[in-house]
Amino acid sequence: MSEAAHITETAHAMADAARRAILPHFRAEGGLAADNKAADHFDPVTVADRAAEEAMRVILAERRPDDGILGEEFGHSEGTSGLTWVLDPIDGTRGFMSGTPTWGVLIAVGGPEGPSFGMIDQPYTGERFWGGFGAAQWTGPLGARRLATRRTATLDEAILFTTFPEVGTPQDRDGFRAVADRVRLVRYGMDCYAYALLAAGQIDLVIEAGLHAYDIQAPIAVIEAAGGIVTDWQGGKTHMGGRAIAAANPEIHRAALEIVAPFAAG
Amino acid sequence: MSEAAHITETAHAMADAARRAILPHFRAEGGLAADNKAADHFDPVTVADRAAEEAMRVILAERRPDDGILGEEFGHSEGTSGLTWVLDPIDGTRGFMSGTPTWGVLIAVGGPEGPSFGMIDQPYTGERFWGGFGAAQWTGPLGARRLATRRTATLDEAILFTTFPEVGTPQDRDGFRAVADRVRLVRYGMDCYAYALLAAGQIDLVIEAGLHAYDIQAPIAVIEAAGGIVTDWQGGKTHMGGRAIAAANPEIHRAALEIVAPFAAG
Repeated sequence: MSEAAHITETAHAMADAARRAILPHFRAEGGLAADNKAADHFDPVTVADRAAEEAMRVILAERRPDDGILGEEFGHSEGTSGLTWVLDPIDGTRGFMSGTPTWGVLIAVGGPEGPSFGMIDQPYTGERFWGGFGAAQWTGPLGARRLATRRTATLDEAILFTTFPEVGTPQDRDGFRAVADRVRLVRYGMDCYAYALLAAGQIDLVIEAGLHAYDIQAPIAVIEAAGGIVTDWQGGKTHMGGRAIAAANPEIHRAALEIVAPFAAG
Repeated sequence: MSEAAHITETAHAMADAARRAILPHFRAEGGLAADNKAADHFDPVTVADRAAEEAMRVILAERRPDDGILGEEFGHSEGTSGLTWVLDPIDGTRGFMSGTPTWGVLIAVGGPEGPSFGMIDQPYTGERFWGGFGAAQWTGPLGARRLATRRTATLDEAILFTTFPEVGTPQDRDGFRAVADRVRLVRYGMDCYAYALLAAGQIDLVIEAGLHAYDIQAPIAVIEAAGGIVTDWQGGKTHMGGRAIAAANPEIHRAALEIVAPFAAG
C-alpha cells in the first residue's frame, strides 16, 4: 500500500472510531432526563470529546506509531516520521451542546508547512468530506460526490459564513462586517460545517478569527483539494491558527482579502 | 380510521412527497456546473418550493378535499370542513440556498384558534418531528424517540436561538438582545430546525419576529405537544404570525417574556 493510501485509510478508520465514541453522547441529554440540576451541563460534550480523541489515538498508535500527534484534548506528542496528525475530536462544542448537526470531527496530517491531507466528518448526518493526495471527495445521504468549489467571481454574488456574529476581537468583527456588507448573503452558526459547504461548492467564503491549528488544518486540506484557498487575513499561511479566510477561488479570495487585510494590521 | 389517524397519515404522506420533490434540487447547484452566470441563482430553491407545495396539494385533493389550504407558494383556498392545512414547503430558503441542513418542510392543520397537529420535516438528514392528537414523536438517524422539552428554569442556564442577529425591526433586535444578554448560550442560523431542537429537549428558547402563519403553525403544534409554549412577545396567540417566543416550559417562558414584552409595545 502506498503511503498516501495508508494515511487515507487510517483517517477513515479514525473518523469511524470517533463516530462510535461520540454518537452515544449526542442529544443524550434533554427531555425529562435532563432534570438533574446537580449534573454539569457541559459533561456530555467533554466526555464525547475525550473518548473520540482517545479512540483516534489508539488507531494511530497501532497503525502509525512514528507520527506525531497534536490533539485538542490531550496535547502534543512528538513523532519521528516528520508527519504530525492534528485532531479536533469535536469542533463546534457549542453546536454539539445545542443538538445542531453542524459540529464535526477534524483530522489533518502534514508537516511544518501545513497539512497534506484532511477530513471533516459529521457523525450524525453521516457526512464525510476529505481531500489530499489527489482526492477531493464527500459521502453522505445523497451518495458519493466529488468536492469542487464554486467559480463565483464577485462579492455581490457571494455567500459568506462565520460561526458567531462577534467573530473575534472588535477589530476582527469590523473586518468581517466590512466584507459582510458587500456580499449577497451572510449566515451564521455552522461551525466547521461551513468549511465543508465551501469545499462542496455550496458557499463562497468563510471568515473567522481566534482559531487554533486543530480548528483549521483539516478545512485547509479539504478546501485546497477542492480548488479553494485558505489564508490568514493578509494572504499568509494560517495552518497554525489565528485569523482565517477561506475562499472558493482566487478571484473571490482576492476581492475579500483586499477588504479584510487592513483589519489584520497591527 | 379515526379523524386524528387520517390527518396524521396524510401529513406523513405529504412530507414524503415533499422530500421526493425537493431533494433532487438540494445542493444540485455548485461545483463547476454552477459556472453559468446567466442562470438565476435563486432558481433551484424556487423550483423545489413550488414542486413540493404542488405535491402536497395533490395529496390533500385526493385524501382531504373538504379541507382548506394556506400555502406559502400558492396562497389560500377555502374548505368546507372547518380545517385548514398551513404549508411552508421550504422554510429557510436562504439555508437551502447555502446547502445547510437546517431548512424544513412545515405542515400544520387546525382551525381559527390555531393548529391541532404539526410536522417539521428535514428531508436531507431524514429527520421528522411531529406533534398533536396525543403524539409527540421524532425519527431520524438515531431512530425513533419521544419529543419532550427541557425543564431549564432560569435564563442563566438557557440556550437561545434565532435565525438572524437582526431578528426583525431595530426594536425587535433590541428585545432579542435583552434576553440574549441574560442566557448561557446564543446561537444563530438554524431556521425552523431550532424549533425542532426545542421540541426535542436540546435548547430552551427561540425568539423571532416578522413571521408568517405558515412559518410558525407547525412549530407551535410540535412544541406544545412536547410540553413547550409558543406565544407572541406579550403572551398572546401567535399562530397568525408576527413575533414569536417559543419556550421549553412555563418557567423559562415567563422569565423571557418579562424581558421581551416591553419591546413589543406600541
